This record gives sequence, C-alpha cells and structure tokens, in this order.
Amino acid sequence: MSEKGLLIVVSGPSGVGKGTLCNALVKNIDNLFISISATTRPPRTGEVNGVNYIFMNQENFEEKIEEGQFLEWAKVYNNYYGTPKEFVIEKLKEGKDVILEIDIQGAAQVKKNCPNGVFVFIAPPSLEELRKRIINRGTDNEESINLRLKSAKEEMRASFDYDYVIINDDLDKAVLKLQSVILAERCKVSRNKDKILEIIGD
Amino acid sequence: MSEKGLLIVVSGPSGVGKGTLCNALVKNIDNLFISISATTRPPRTGEVNGVNYIFMNQENFEEKIEEGQFLEWAKVYNNYYGTPKEFVIEKLKEGKDVILEIDIQGAAQVKKNCPNGVFVFIAPPSLEELRKRIINRGTDNEESINLRLKSAKEEMRASFDYDYVIINDDLDKAVLKLQSVILAERCKVSRNKDKILEIIGD
Repeated sequence: MSEKGLLIVVSGPSGVGKGTLCNALVKNIDNLFISISATTRPPRTGEVNGVNYIFMNQENFEEKIEEGQFLEWAKVYNNYYGTPKEFVIEKLKEGKDVILEIDIQGAAQVKKNCPNGVFVFIAPPSLEELRKRIINRGTDNEESINLRLKSAKEEMRASFDYDYVIINDDLDKAVLKLQSVILAERCKVSRNKDKILEIIGD
Repeated sequence: MSEKGLLIVVSGPSGVGKGTLCNALVKNIDNLFISISATTRPPRTGEVNGVNYIFMNQENFEEKIEEGQFLEWAKVYNNYYGTPKEFVIEKLKEGKDVILEIDIQGAAQVKKNCPNGVFVFIAPPSLEELRKRIINRGTDNEESINLRLKSAKEEMRASFDYDYVIINDDLDKAVLKLQSVILAERCKVSRNKDKILEIIGD
C-alpha cells in the first residue's frame, strides 16, 4: 500500500492503558481515526455494534477471510477477531491517519503488508505497576492476573520489532508522546518528497 | 559517538526562520541546549562572546582544527566558522539534547561522525514567501536577495538527505512540529533498549 495517511499500529500488554491513551489522542488530533475490529464473539452488555466492535457471525467472518478483506485476523478461544481492510484503506486514501489497536501477532501481520506503518508499543513503567493496574480493574482472579503478567513479559520482548516505545507512567505525558510520534512521522522527508519538489518548483 | 542525549541538526535556507524556531523551542522543552558556533569573523555591534558566537582569532581556530576539536567547520569569505566538539559531547553524555543550527555542508560533515543524529530541514512554504521574508528583513539588496534565493533552491535539494522536513508556514505550528520530532525521537525503540530490558527484568 502506498497511501497518503499514516497507519499507526499500537500494541501493548493488557492493562497498560492503550485504549484510554488512543481515545484521549483522537480528541487532540485532527484527521485521526481509530479502526474498529470485527469479531464473532457475542456482544457483552452495553456493547454497541459499530462502536465497540463490528459483530458478525462465523460464516460471514470466514467468507471475508477468504476474500482477503482483513488486514490481520486471529482466532482466540473459538472466536475470530480481525481488522477490516476497507475502512482503513478508505481513510488512508483520503489522507487521514488511522490507529489500529491490535496485539503483537496482528501487528506482525500488518507489518508484512504495510511496511510504511508506524509501530508503537505501549509499555508499563514496571511489571509491578502493571500488576497493580490489572488488580485495580477488578476483572481478573489471581490465576488470570498471573497469566496476563506472564504474557506481558513475552509481549515486552516483541517491542524490539516496533519503531517507538512509550512508557505509560503518566496519561497526559503518554498522550503527548503518542501525539508527537504522529506529528513527527507526518514530517518525515520520505513522506514529503512531492511537497519538497513542489516548493523547489522543478 | 554513542551518547545518551539527542543530537539535533537543524538546517534551512537563509531567512526561513531557523533561529526564531530554535530559540522558541528551547523555552518549551527541558534539557535542550543550542550549541554556540565559533568564528574568526569580528563581532558585530551588540554581539556578545559566548552568546551569539565564540569569537577567536585565526591562529587559535586553525590550532583547534588540527586538534580535531570541531564537529564540523568551514571557511566562508576568509572567515572560519565551526562547532566546538567539547560542549556538545559534554551535554550529550549528561543525557541532554543539543541543537546544532548549521548549513547543509556542516550537516553532511556531522552526519559522517554522528549517524545517530536527528537531521531536520526547515523549508519555506514557497520560494516566493521566502523572498518576501528576506525583503522584510531589510538587510539585503536586490542582487543579494537573488543570490540567497538561488542557494535556497539548491539547499532545498539537499533536504532529501535529512530525516524530517518542517515547512515553516506558521511559527507556533512549526515549533510544535520540531518539539514533536524531539519527543518522538526520544521514544525510538532503538534509543530505549536498556529501559525495555530493565522493565522485563531479565
């Protein structure tokens, strides 16, 4: 893909605050959109189709896989999750930037298709702090907390394949850093060659 | 050099507003310093040694060249100009960031010694706008203005060797972009490997 907008891929361990960060950022920056994932898992109470997820049945999802309509997809505990290509491509073509909040496996798939993407890993200040945040969320039992911390450690190792790492020790500072990454990437010479030639007037 | 701070090299045509931009930025960002050039040209009225330039005589300058004490240097119209290494290295070692406001030839010299540097080119929105700014400055006659515009065009071609290009159409926006480049570069994974390993705890 050689689109005009930026594709920003954001990953990080569960509980690190990716969602809060991305939602805060979208309010700060113009022309930035968060891609909505599709899934076959049933909606939970309060979840709205097209807002939290695009909900679809298994047959429909598998059809779209075969048609190559996902930028990335995975099957987790018998449920499919994926990023529909159409929305992302459409926004990028319009020169708008799109954030994908996806896991490290999804990010690796996207990197193959979109080497021009910007890959940002959100890290906790420490694993101890991450444990606290997961406990405070109150949705996990002891076993599940330990599992999440074990995978956090493995995910952290994958951060070396990303372009940027933002340590989320303070929400406002982390938002400013993520915003800076996007503004800086928009200024990359490699993304502005036409503009420079236009100014030179050749 | 494998220092802890960022070395930021800023170039751009005469009249584009590099100095204003860098001075505004230093007020916004902590731990950021502008390197002061050394020169053998005599001080102009109002110029202060150690503030505008480090003024030295030709013999002294040539001695320092031989001792390898400049990051980059050039002779322009019989006067030497150069960036003393000591200040820059000292700040970078302390983990502080340093801006060099130098021309494209100087930047090319620095790139050889400091490939980890961040190279930012400041461009005018158009050559017509650059002409207006040079005229408004009121320091150049018609011939000198035309000469400056001719070299601006050549300098703009060198921008393709830089990492970032910031089009200075609005001072506040340009300051925000330059600030973003610095904050983003500080988040590069390649500059934070030790920190990530520390969090993983291996």
